[in-house]
Amino acid sequence: ISSVYINNSHGMDDDEFFDRNLALFEEEMDTRPKVSSLLSRLANYTNLTQGAKEHEEAESIGEKKKTSKSPQMGTFMGVYLPCLQNIFGVILFLRLTWVVGTAGVLQALCIVFICCCCTLLTAISMSAIATNGVVPAGGSYFMISRSLGPEFGGAVGICFYLGTTFAGAMYILGAIEILLMYIVPQAEIFKGGGAAVLNNMRVYGSICLLLMSLLVFVGVKYVNKLASIFLACVIVSIVSIYIGAFVSAFHEHKFTVCMLGNRTISSHDQCNKTVPEKPTLLWEEFCHSTELNATCDEYFTANNFTEIKGIPGLASGIISENLWSSYIGKGEVLEKSSLSSSHSSPPASPTHPYVFADITTSFTLLVGIFFPSVTGIMAGSNRSGDLKDAQRSIPIGTILAILTTSFVYLSSVVLFGACIDGVVLRDKFGESVDGTLVVGTLAWPSPWVIVIGSFFSTCGAGLQSLTGAPRLLQAIAKDNIIPFLRVFGHGKANGEPTWALLLTALIAELGILIASLDLVAPILTMFFLMCYLFVNLACALQTLLRTPNWRPRFSYYHWTLSFLGMIICLALMFISSWYYAIVAMVIAGMIYKYIEYHGAEKEWGDGIRGLSLSAARYALLRLEEGPPHTKNWRPQLLVLLKLDEDAHVKSPRLLTFASQLKAGKGLTIVGTVVSGNFLQTYGEALAAEQTLKHLMEKERVKGFVQCIVAQKPREGISHMIQSSGLGGMKPNTVVMGWPHTWRQSEDPQAWKTFINTVRVTTAAHLALLVPKNISLFPSNSEPPTDGYIDIWWIVHDGGMLMLLPFLLRQHKVWRKCGMRIFTVAQMEDNSIQMKKDLATFLYHLRIEAEVEVVEMVCDHDISAYTYERTLMMEQRSQMLRQMRLSKSDREKEVSVDHSNVRRMHTAVKLNEVIVNKSHDARLVLLNMPGPPKNTDGDENYMEFLEVLTEGLERVLLVRGGGSEVITIYS
Amino acid sequence: ISSVYINNSHGMDDDEFFDRNLALFEEEMDTRPKVSSLLSRLANYTNLTQGAKEHEEAESIGEKKKTSKSPQMGTFMGVYLPCLQNIFGVILFLRLTWVVGTAGVLQALCIVFICCCCTLLTAISMSAIATNGVVPAGGSYFMISRSLGPEFGGAVGICFYLGTTFAGAMYILGAIEILLMYIVPQAEIFKGGGAAVLNNMRVYGSICLLLMSLLVFVGVKYVNKLASIFLACVIVSIVSIYIGAFVSAFHEHKFTVCMLGNRTISSHDQCNKTVPEKPTLLWEEFCHSTELNATCDEYFTANNFTEIKGIPGLASGIISENLWSSYIGKGEVLEKSSLSSSHSSPPASPTHPYVFADITTSFTLLVGIFFPSVTGIMAGSNRSGDLKDAQRSIPIGTILAILTTSFVYLSSVVLFGACIDGVVLRDKFGESVDGTLVVGTLAWPSPWVIVIGSFFSTCGAGLQSLTGAPRLLQAIAKDNIIPFLRVFGHGKANGEPTWALLLTALIAELGILIASLDLVAPILTMFFLMCYLFVNLACALQTLLRTPNWRPRFSYYHWTLSFLGMIICLALMFISSWYYAIVAMVIAGMIYKYIEYHGAEKEWGDGIRGLSLSAARYALLRLEEGPPHTKNWRPQLLVLLKLDEDAHVKSPRLLTFASQLKAGKGLTIVGTVVSGNFLQTYGEALAAEQTLKHLMEKERVKGFVQCIVAQKPREGISHMIQSSGLGGMKPNTVVMGWPHTWRQSEDPQAWKTFINTVRVTTAAHLALLVPKNISLFPSNSEPPTDGYIDIWWIVHDGGMLMLLPFLLRQHKVWRKCGMRIFTVAQMEDNSIQMKKDLATFLYHLRIEAEVEVVEMVCDHDISAYTYERTLMMEQRSQMLRQMRLSKSDREKEVSVDHSNVRRMHTAVKLNEVIVNKSHDARLVLLNMPGPPKNTDGDENYMEFLEVLTEGLERVLLVRGGGSEVITIYS
Repeated sequence: ISSVYINNSHGMDDDEFFDRNLALFEEEMDTRPKVSSLLSRLANYTNLTQGAKEHEEAESIGEKKKTSKSPQMGTFMGVYLPCLQNIFGVILFLRLTWVVGTAGVLQALCIVFICCCCTLLTAISMSAIATNGVVPAGGSYFMISRSLGPEFGGAVGICFYLGTTFAGAMYILGAIEILLMYIVPQAEIFKGGGAAVLNNMRVYGSICLLLMSLLVFVGVKYVNKLASIFLACVIVSIVSIYIGAFVSAFHEHKFTVCMLGNRTISSHDQCNKTVPEKPTLLWEEFCHSTELNATCDEYFTANNFTEIKGIPGLASGIISENLWSSYIGKGEVLEKSSLSSSHSSPPASPTHPYVFADITTSFTLLVGIFFPSVTGIMAGSNRSGDLKDAQRSIPIGTILAILTTSFVYLSSVVLFGACIDGVVLRDKFGESVDGTLVVGTLAWPSPWVIVIGSFFSTCGAGLQSLTGAPRLLQAIAKDNIIPFLRVFGHGKANGEPTWALLLTALIAELGILIASLDLVAPILTMFFLMCYLFVNLACALQTLLRTPNWRPRFSYYHWTLSFLGMIICLALMFISSWYYAIVAMVIAGMIYKYIEYHGAEKEWGDGIRGLSLSAARYALLRLEEGPPHTKNWRPQLLVLLKLDEDAHVKSPRLLTFASQLKAGKGLTIVGTVVSGNFLQTYGEALAAEQTLKHLMEKERVKGFVQCIVAQKPREGISHMIQSSGLGGMKPNTVVMGWPHTWRQSEDPQAWKTFINTVRVTTAAHLALLVPKNISLFPSNSEPPTDGYIDIWWIVHDGGMLMLLPFLLRQHKVWRKCGMRIFTVAQMEDNSIQMKKDLATFLYHLRIEAEVEVVEMVCDHDISAYTYERTLMMEQRSQMLRQMRLSKSDREKEVSVDHSNVRRMHTAVKLNEVIVNKSHDARLVLLNMPGPPKNTDGDENYMEFLEVLTEGLERVLLVRGGGSEVITIYS
Repeated sequence: ISSVYINNSHGMDDDEFFDRNLALFEEEMDTRPKVSSLLSRLANYTNLTQGAKEHEEAESIGEKKKTSKSPQMGTFMGVYLPCLQNIFGVILFLRLTWVVGTAGVLQALCIVFICCCCTLLTAISMSAIATNGVVPAGGSYFMISRSLGPEFGGAVGICFYLGTTFAGAMYILGAIEILLMYIVPQAEIFKGGGAAVLNNMRVYGSICLLLMSLLVFVGVKYVNKLASIFLACVIVSIVSIYIGAFVSAFHEHKFTVCMLGNRTISSHDQCNKTVPEKPTLLWEEFCHSTELNATCDEYFTANNFTEIKGIPGLASGIISENLWSSYIGKGEVLEKSSLSSSHSSPPASPTHPYVFADITTSFTLLVGIFFPSVTGIMAGSNRSGDLKDAQRSIPIGTILAILTTSFVYLSSVVLFGACIDGVVLRDKFGESVDGTLVVGTLAWPSPWVIVIGSFFSTCGAGLQSLTGAPRLLQAIAKDNIIPFLRVFGHGKANGEPTWALLLTALIAELGILIASLDLVAPILTMFFLMCYLFVNLACALQTLLRTPNWRPRFSYYHWTLSFLGMIICLALMFISSWYYAIVAMVIAGMIYKYIEYHGAEKEWGDGIRGLSLSAARYALLRLEEGPPHTKNWRPQLLVLLKLDEDAHVKSPRLLTFASQLKAGKGLTIVGTVVSGNFLQTYGEALAAEQTLKHLMEKERVKGFVQCIVAQKPREGISHMIQSSGLGGMKPNTVVMGWPHTWRQSEDPQAWKTFINTVRVTTAAHLALLVPKNISLFPSNSEPPTDGYIDIWWIVHDGGMLMLLPFLLRQHKVWRKCGMRIFTVAQMEDNSIQMKKDLATFLYHLRIEAEVEVVEMVCDHDISAYTYERTLMMEQRSQMLRQMRLSKSDREKEVSVDHSNVRRMHTAVKLNEVIVNKSHDARLVLLNMPGPPKNTDGDENYMEFLEVLTEGLERVLLVRGGGSEVITIYS
């Protein structure tokens, strides 16, 4: 033998060598890729076998890009600077001083700190998500939607989009505010305060939006090129503030504020009542006269003018005055509490030249207004496609940018509080300092550095929002998860999203019509917070669920951090405005539901899917605590269906009946056994499963399909009854059809399987329902008809007989049917009392039914008919068994005979009364007698059941599972 | 034959007749009760077979009661009047006028309407719950807890208890307020306003609480007897209001209010600046001087005194002035806007004798203060034990009582608004009308009717709260669902709950220390609203879940009504005070969790349990959408365990390994097959299930057990693999042990079953894990040790090999292990490039591992050792098969030989390199070759596997399920 081996081995060539070396794995090699070829493919970023389509598309897009330029940006240029530019914004220049003045340094620090914490924690979560695998180019929306799934992803995407769009509106409003307030106040179209200011904003804002949209439409590439210039503006401005603050320690700033008593005067030329002898302009305003003896405003008379320094400087210790909050109501005058004022102070008239608060402030309001200045942290991850090493750059760059901006904000708060007087800080539009931008008063060398700087940077930010938002919308639309957005996926020939830009401009116009920065800011705060909330949620969930695929390279995340971030987001939402928060949540919820019902099916393999698995597992584990209480018993069906040779279901009506019994609630498992060898018939089994699933869909039964391939169907059924269900979700009732052809069929297998199944259900303590003449049962589409459901309560079998008609009557087909309960009185029973008791019982069961007690006529003689039937039956059985039976068995036969007659007597008598009373019933429910213990009498058992139900149209044979299923107690 | 029958039948006696008549049901009759005897038992309210214990206890208590008196109360006396008495309360007399004045008639109607809607809807839900079966005596707490389950029931019970207790405090505060303000103002201990008032309340309230507690402690029966007197007081008072209102239309009331400008003056003798020439008392108060030329308060100087009617009467049309709200801040003066006032009005000084508002009012605050006057709707159902027909009386009586009270409240609001002037209405303590109770001003014939009536009824209500609350606490404590309350279940010899009374008094004292009715009211509002919320929830849930046991006799419920009620409750909670609402919810939540973890297991069969079933079903149905995405793939294990003859698990370490692989997450099904006939071995199967469950508990594996009794174990395993799991919760990986004794065992069954199982898993597209030398695997308690997990990546089989060690390393036992990946390079491969590619691949997979590419030495000669091993193997197989094989088979044998050598060569060579590289590894993972297609080579296959793994300590053979399980994409 060995020589044969050597011969063969010598004859091998190199190709065969491979086979020999890994011959054991031959079969695997046929179907699975070779490791070496797989590796070489993977090295080129090609995909694994599965889920390839989407990624391939992404790649093909990516490759196109690659041809134009390869992603070569580093952390600093690619992530840090864009983040910095996006985070710093208009709020820093226009509102931070006011926030510090109103909330006080301490609370302002608190606001900034909370907001920065929120973004920092979100950035950590986002870093984890961004480093969990190769990121398809497309930015944060893609990352979030792919890890949260289409529903959440879509909702988050829309929130992000709306946030960005409203941010655009906010920037435009900010730019116009700078323009009209500080650069060219002369340009105002509408004069006066209040509504006029807003109308100016609306007109100029709309014009500005139009121009910017046109610019974006025409030349988006110029916008991107200007980004660095805008950033430079911001940095120069910030530096000028820092320098100004330090200079203020040594050098006196020129700005002075005129005070009357402790009230701040807005516009003033000379801060005096009279200049030597002549009344000043202020005199005229307070006295409505130029006469020195005119009657003047009471407060004006009682108090004197003083001039205080607007910028006392770093060394002045003014910070101790600015530490605490001084929230004021709309229309109140800015007061400096440290100045003296005449005791009784009548309220200020709005016609006097005081500085009034234009809105009522509170801590929560300020949070909403400040928050937009910490958004923009996604700017880095949006460029994932352009980065050399996205997985390293995104976390580092983003977090560094957040730390930088946080430092700038926190230090600014302290510097503002330490350098500028409280009344100036609280003076939102710098009216007390001659209409200079308040933060500009601190700037070195001139306020114009900041006015111009902030104007350009704000314009730039607006442009970028208008560039970014349509692209985001286009990405969402192209994902096709929100059908009605589909049109926004199209674009110009060069891919510019024209329609999306139009929609974005329209939404931004809405924001501009609101016209107030302070009202628009909380809106975008909401949307961004929603978005951040979901980022944190995605990270926390995936960590907690321990999805095997959750292996972020960025390892400094923890679910507690993400969870904290989530809580902060939620808290900030409700703190800043609980009704906006609810509106934002409702919007997100509606989008979620819309995508769930109408969205395209996406197999993104989101981490949230793991949640449903965990939820299902948790719910199942909770359930598994023994059998339910009687109160909670409800039928959990295992419907055994049979397939014929063509793989069609033999009695689909069985499933119809099951659906009527459930009315859509509870567990339904539909099972079938295919005979054959599983190793060969896997396909057949799948086909059978599909058939059953289709049938279930047709019958609108929600449930599960189970198909077993078994060599012996009888064993298969037994195993299915034993093993179907999981944990607490096990069926407690088996539904199966009656083998109608058992008499005709040569093969005893049909009814043997039937009887065996009856035995198995009894052994497994399950209830059993056998509808006879199932094809006559009503279909679901049948119109409901009057009639009766008759219950023949012969044995108390746990109460199934009472419960089933009640359940059936929940379904429209049976709704109109009345219920009648018959019970059989024996000789010794007092049937009148029994009827009364039964009625009471049903009253307590809260089941409406007519009650009848049937007395079985007491004839001692068994009728000739009974004997005849028994004889016929016995002869038939005899015949069937002739071959099989040995002598000894035949002897046993004789001893069985006696009980056969008695049983036949029951069957005949009962059938008589049932047919007599219930011949017109729509359905007859009947206790099903148990099969004989001895398997010899099996044919007789079938015969008994036939006799028992003879002449009845629709019969439901019921066997209890041994537990009570109905109770009179609440 | 027939003569034998006749003979037999004639021999039957009457006893046998029964058997004959229902002979078919003989077996059922043995184990189940006869219908007639069951009925006669049931008619005496005895219980059904199951769930008897608790009800029996309840009955025995009930019977004790029955001996004392039989329940004979009707709807009117038993439900309607008690409800009426409990609903009407102190708020109607003390605060309703103020609510009308402050909120205006329209908003007040709105408040009353919402509150009444809330209770009406709750009453409907409660009626449904109360009529769903025989109610065990014990009232609403029992009904709610039995239908909501112990957790919710306990939480609701405690809320209800706290609400009742605080209601007691509120009533006492109300009584003291009436006493000190309107009956004996002289009794004040502390003089002055503000804190002094509160301190008076505290002192007198505490004394009153003490007295009342003593009264309850000594003679609770007197309290109950007084109930009708208290009710009479209420009714008389209300009637006197109605009469007074109608009288006011014709007859002028004497009460006048003194106004200065449009400001209300509190105490006044003469409503003038001067009486002829002398200054009045008011002059003195405003001018701090009795001189007529003194400088007076500016406002005093500018305005004149007028006297207006306090009760203009029904016909005056004053209602048009009272329609709209006039909320004012704390410390502001009550003003009548229709009066003129000098233009510039300096703020009022608190030293002047104006009527000031004592708290800042708002719509939401008023809701919280008014709500307690609609509570008390459970009073009827609390008496369920004493009612003749509880199921009829409770709904009718309760709903009628609510309608009555609602009518009274709504009409009162209109009457108050139509009869009384706004400033008097807003004057909470009647300061402007000489310290008369405001509602008293309207009363006919005298205010004293109401003052006295309300005082007694309020005292009575307080007494009843102090009686009811301890009993409720005792009931909760006796239920034993909240262990730390156990002590409160004990009582005096006569059953009086002494300790519970003490606790109740202590909690009520807390309420009294708050001292203000307006602050205590919102607290109890919260607790009652929580309670009502859960009643509505219970009703809505059970209707929606269609629990079969949910068949209330009261049929005018609908889930939308209950849901609406729930929403209103929730809305009212948050409207009246969102932080109280959160506190109340947190308290309820804590109690829920406490009961969940520490409470006694109660089988009350609550409707909520149906919710978990629905949740599990829903979650499972959601899951069933094909195989999961690669990203979501996680091992769902089916662990096949074997039991030995003594029903012990053969390799429990297999489960340990599974638990290490899962680290507690995902699905684990532990299955075993018991050989035998299911009809006989049900008990054995249960025992096996128990064994497995115990083992799972010991190994802390959460999962499900499945046990199948099969005639042929091999078939049983096949069916288990096919059918285990449900819907989307199907296992995707099978874990089974290696049959160690296959060589020794005479019986080939062991390894044949093994190979068959391998084939079945492959056919079912499941992955397979076979740990070899399982007994050497580490237990969970083993300390983590350093070392390596080695992966021999020979075939790419979906990535299982990479994923498994990653998952294992999540478990503490394997945490310290490093990972090494070896792959085998063929001749044609560039092994350096392969190593690089592999490293890149692992980087993208985010899996840290050392990488090595092993080049199989290219020796063309198959070693002599290989031949020897093959020969040995073949001889052994030959021997085994000798008997079975025919000549033709033996010929086939020769042709197989060649591939056997090649396979053996692979095994030997691979084993060589693996042992060489991984002999010190803690675990070696290895692709498992598939079994031969031809079953003839089965023994050889076993031998190959043995050779392949020879000399290795712990080996895990891995076969993929045909799908990718790991991806580099995010």
